[in-house]
Amino acid sequence: MKLIRYGSAGKEKPGVILPDGRWVDVSAFGEDYDETFFENNSLDDLEKWIQDRGEGLPEVPQETRLGSPIVRPSKIICIGLNYAKHAKESGMEIPEEPVIFFKSTSAIVGPNDDLVIPKNGSKGEREFQLERSGQWVKGKSADTFAPIGPFLATRNEIKDPHNLHLWLKVNGDMMQEGDTSDFIFSVPEIVSYVSQFMSLLPGDIISTGTPPGVGLGMDPPRFLQAGDVVELGIGGLGESRQFVRSYEEASST
Amino acid sequence: MKLIRYGSAGKEKPGVILPDGRWVDVSAFGEDYDETFFENNSLDDLEKWIQDRGEGLPEVPQETRLGSPIVRPSKIICIGLNYAKHAKESGMEIPEEPVIFFKSTSAIVGPNDDLVIPKNGSKGEREFQLERSGQWVKGKSADTFAPIGPFLATRNEIKDPHNLHLWLKVNGDMMQEGDTSDFIFSVPEIVSYVSQFMSLLPGDIISTGTPPGVGLGMDPPRFLQAGDVVELGIGGLGESRQFVRSYEEASST
Repeated sequence: MKLIRYGSAGKEKPGVILPDGRWVDVSAFGEDYDETFFENNSLDDLEKWIQDRGEGLPEVPQETRLGSPIVRPSKIICIGLNYAKHAKESGMEIPEEPVIFFKSTSAIVGPNDDLVIPKNGSKGEREFQLERSGQWVKGKSADTFAPIGPFLATRNEIKDPHNLHLWLKVNGDMMQEGDTSDFIFSVPEIVSYVSQFMSLLPGDIISTGTPPGVGLGMDPPRFLQAGDVVELGIGGLGESRQFVRSYEEASST
Repeated sequence: MKLIRYGSAGKEKPGVILPDGRWVDVSAFGEDYDETFFENNSLDDLEKWIQDRGEGLPEVPQETRLGSPIVRPSKIICIGLNYAKHAKESGMEIPEEPVIFFKSTSAIVGPNDDLVIPKNGSKGEREFQLERSGQWVKGKSADTFAPIGPFLATRNEIKDPHNLHLWLKVNGDMMQEGDTSDFIFSVPEIVSYVSQFMSLLPGDIISTGTPPGVGLGMDPPRFLQAGDVVELGIGGLGESRQFVRSYEEASST
């Protein structure tokens, strides 16, 4: 199944993308896609519920805004430097064990929502991450810095998570490209590793790293600025598009 | 007011410590101490509700287990090296701006619950923090590593948050002692600073740092081990006590 949440920010309703591509509302099922939903294995019940209803589910127009396909989870865990080629371009050694850090869940937005550059953050995240004391959390947690979606694909939708092509364009130019076959640490390795340090809860997000081509590795380094358009996609997991706005611009609208 | 949550883990009910020291159940008020509660300023309503009921509220025996006085919030933000003297003993320069990092909210337990040393973590958190790649998050996020409580004091309970004495004993020996007057960054400075990087949500926890005396700064360094008893307190904010158990021991009970 492909789960979506649609509607205005903070008031999203749960939906599903049917195999024929139509979007349908499933709020009558009575649950949102949150920790409890995943904990209770409600996916199976939802699937059966949809089958029983067949054609009768209300369709959602595809111009509708999408939110994150899951309700804010307990945490977002990010794996740094997980692509062998990205580690290389950042001038970092290939890590012997995963580098993990958190991103604030308040950063979550819909897949096509605006990306807002924080006040005082002219180089976007990288200034905060590199030039200000210590931990990466500062550069990663700004509001809008975690676009999630367009949909959550359940396990059976993805044949092999270690064979997915990823790409990212800025203003139409291909900037990052990679393949999850380049992972230093596989998905099962990451889940097992992170679980040594903390409990993973149902619905928690693990971001498995960024592929080669980041602007910081360029000469001169390139940072996102207001007016830029970011587009990205992962094979089988859909595409998204963010318009970059300055803090001032975003606050006045 | 002093808010508590009492009862068995995962099934806590909201309560209040009355000015005369009695614990009373306020679950009939109909809200738990979560993000929505603080967002809606329900504190004022609760206070009035309690006054209206006077002596009629059901009393809670003080042997009852306490949980965290607030429901799991969106995040725990920790400030590193915020005591001038602790920075010194760690051999670190006094930071020019706060060092911030996250602790997983899955680490939250009640104030007097057992502290469980993770599997493979013989030196407790410090090994994970120092000897394993990168970010501090690994050493800080293990289950049970965030005892919260015994109570949440509302603002009017604390005259001056920058004049509180803190202490921590291990097996009865005073190990850490400090005073919030030794803060490098004050509470308003921290709130303002963190807000530059992310949105703080109602109920979020900010841990304002640890005072001088940590075991890592000793020669030889001292790490908690199974059987140790940790006791700590902050003036006006109560005391707590954790019994340290090995992962194996905790799993078998």
